This record gives sequence, C-alpha cells and structure tokens, in this order.
Amino acid sequence: MTGEFYVQTKSRTDFVEITGQVQDFLNNTKVSGDFKADGALVVFTPHTTAGVTINENADPSVVLDMAHALDLMVPWSHPAYAHSEGNSAAHMKSTLVGCSEMVFFGDGRLELGKWQGIFLCEFDGPRTRHVRVRIIG
Amino acid sequence: MTGEFYVQTKSRTDFVEITGQVQDFLNNTKVSGDFKADGALVVFTPHTTAGVTINENADPSVVLDMAHALDLMVPWSHPAYAHSEGNSAAHMKSTLVGCSEMVFFGDGRLELGKWQGIFLCEFDGPRTRHVRVRIIG
Amino acid sequence: MTGEFYVQTKSRTDFVEITGQVQDFLNNTKVSGDFKADGALVVFTPHTTAGVTINENADPSVVLDMAHALDLMVPWSHPAYAHSEGNSAAHMKSTLVGCSEMVFFGDGRLELGKWQGIFLCEFDGPRTRHVRVRIIG
Repeated sequence: MTGEFYVQTKSRTDFVEITGQVQDFLNNTKVSGDFKADGALVVFTPHTTAGVTINENADPSVVLDMAHALDLMVPWSHPAYAHSEGNSAAHMKSTLVGCSEMVFFGDGRLELGKWQGIFLCEFDGPRTRHVRVRIIG
Repeated sequence: MTGEFYVQTKSRTDFVEITGQVQDFLNNTKVSGDFKADGALVVFTPHTTAGVTINENADPSVVLDMAHALDLMVPWSHPAYAHSEGNSAAHMKSTLVGCSEMVFFGDGRLELGKWQGIFLCEFDGPRTRHVRVRIIG
Repeated sequence: MTGEFYVQTKSRTDFVEITGQVQDFLNNTKVSGDFKADGALVVFTPHTTAGVTINENADPSVVLDMAHALDLMVPWSHPAYAHSEGNSAAHMKSTLVGCSEMVFFGDGRLELGKWQGIFLCEFDGPRTRHVRVRIIG
C-alpha cells in the first residue's frame, strides 16, 4: 500500500509539517480495505536537496532555529565547492537530515511522541516537492 | 511484535548503549512463540531532543568525542535562536542523529558489525527516555 | 532475502555509488524465484566509520562538495578528542550520515528520484567495506 502527495515550499529553507497527510494516508488504507492495524511505514522524498525529519511541531520557532543552526554548520557559499548549480549546501543538508523516516502505527494511528511531528525539509526552494508513503511491516 | 523500555540518562549529553535491551526484546519474542528467525527491526525513540544511533561501543571515548564534535557543530546558545525553552541545539542534534535505526537480525541475533552498538543519545538531559522496538520485516 | 557485496574505497573520504549493486540484488531475487514485485529494502553497512546515503549521482562534484562540507563541520583533529585511534571525526560523520538507507521498489526496479543514487560513504579509508541489502516489506 503506497500513497503520495505534493508539498509546496515557500522559501529557500522551509520545514513544512506533513503529519496530517501521512495520517490521511493511513485513514485511506482503512477505507480501501487494505487496513493493517499495527505496523510501520516509511515516509520518503525522492529529492536530493530536500529531506524528511521528525521533530517538535508545537512551537514553530524550533524548526526556524534548526534552519539557522544548519546554516551555521553548512555555509551556502564556499571556495571549495565545485558543483556548478551552486546548491551544494542544500545537498549536504539533505544527507545530514536524510530523505526518509520510519514511523510506527497502531489501531490506524501514527505512534509519534507527544511533541513529534513529521516535516518535509526544503533546502533549495521554493519548489513543489514529492513525498511517498509506504507501509512496510 | 513490539517492545519498549526506559533509559535513565545522566547528563545534558549522554550516549547510553541499549544493544542489550534490544537483544533482550528479540530473546523475548522467541520465548513468547512469536519468533521470527530472520528479518529487521526498528529502534525508535519518541522524543524531539534525543536520538538513536549505531556506532562504536568498544572504546567509550568514541561517543564522548562525538558529544564534543556535536557541540562544535551546534552551539548551545546563539543570538538567532528564538525557541523559548532554550534547547534548540538539542532539537538540532536530534534531527542530525535521527530518532530511529534499522537493524537486521538472523537466528534470533542482532546482525551488527563487530564494533557496532546501538545507543540512545540524550541531548537535553538528564531525563528518563522511552525506546520502542518493533519487528518490521 | 538478503544480499551482500564489498566496496573498495580509494581515499580517506570517498563516496562510492552502489545503486547498480543494489539493483543487481533485486534482479537476482527475481532469478531465484523469491521475487517480490513491490516493497522496500534496506541498505546497511556494518561499520562505524562509514555510512550510506542517497544523493545526486549526476554531477560527481556534489559528493566532493559534501566531503568538503563535512570536513568544515567536523575537524579531523581537535584537542578535545580522546579516542586513541585518532579517527573520531570519521565516527562522527558515520553517525551524521547514518549506516543505512531505506529504498522503495516496484516491478523489480528501485524507486529512486531522477537524481538520486545510493552511496557507500567512506570516512576513514581506503578500506574494503561490507554492504548488506535486505527486503523488509
């Protein structure tokens, strides 16, 4: 059972919460008759300058602070960078954050921690980004 | 098949090895009759200022050096941080390390490399942290 | 269904594309009669100074720039490092990048994005590195 959806990002760096879309995918598997009560799913983005992470969704300043911290770690421009598109920092951030996350579910609900949300992380936007979700166990 | 356990961390940054608890979970599935000889499991922590990683467990200085290296990368305080709880660095480290790891097993034993151990990574402790383990394939 | 192969790295830091070997594994499962049309697999490396990542495979300068960016983030030598082998930075990079990746497949083909390739990341080479692949869902 696989789902997919698209996310419009709004700036070069943007963390867009997608917990609702992933829960919707679970809800739809129930409707479709493919319902699996307990298991795990993977959220995957097929891009090399974006990522998927799980972090706090209660205070929006958390993801803004992470954007700052990533900029401190990975300078946008550097004399050593050779990639002609000029977005090497975005590729680095994608590999640091990773392009997928694993999430458990039970009784058709995502089993995230109280403060955890799932985010599509944009590092070279604004763009339209693709996200795939698949139940894997 | 899902297991869970708790880990008491002892300082703001702490890497606590949990390989034994994860192996115990596998042993218990054998006892319970749900035994699966070969597959994969996920170790997940439902927190936004902690993480799970796999790294060397032979020399304890490896994880201490990683704690130092993370502090060099992600300053605890920074004028750009806006999150009022003051632990933005811990959130950043959680996303860098990730909140889950996938591990293969065979014949009821974790298939880790010779030097690999599984660690619960604390970035805003000391606290009691929750870890979940689920066989997914 | 599990596969494995070895990768010879050529320098201290080296990103070696292994997409072909992972696709070969899928092709072999078809030949062996264990074919599963759709699902997910995990690529895992059992080392503590190497990693696995997904990033751009079109322009080779992307992974070279990531090697530079990682060196900026994680100094090879630092007075705070205590690990006697002197490769603490390699351990840190392994945890930042992670030792596994999850990849979807359908109709026997890896479902990667247009620009995505799978890389074995060497951080303390040159060495011969081991990679395992397992279908998990």
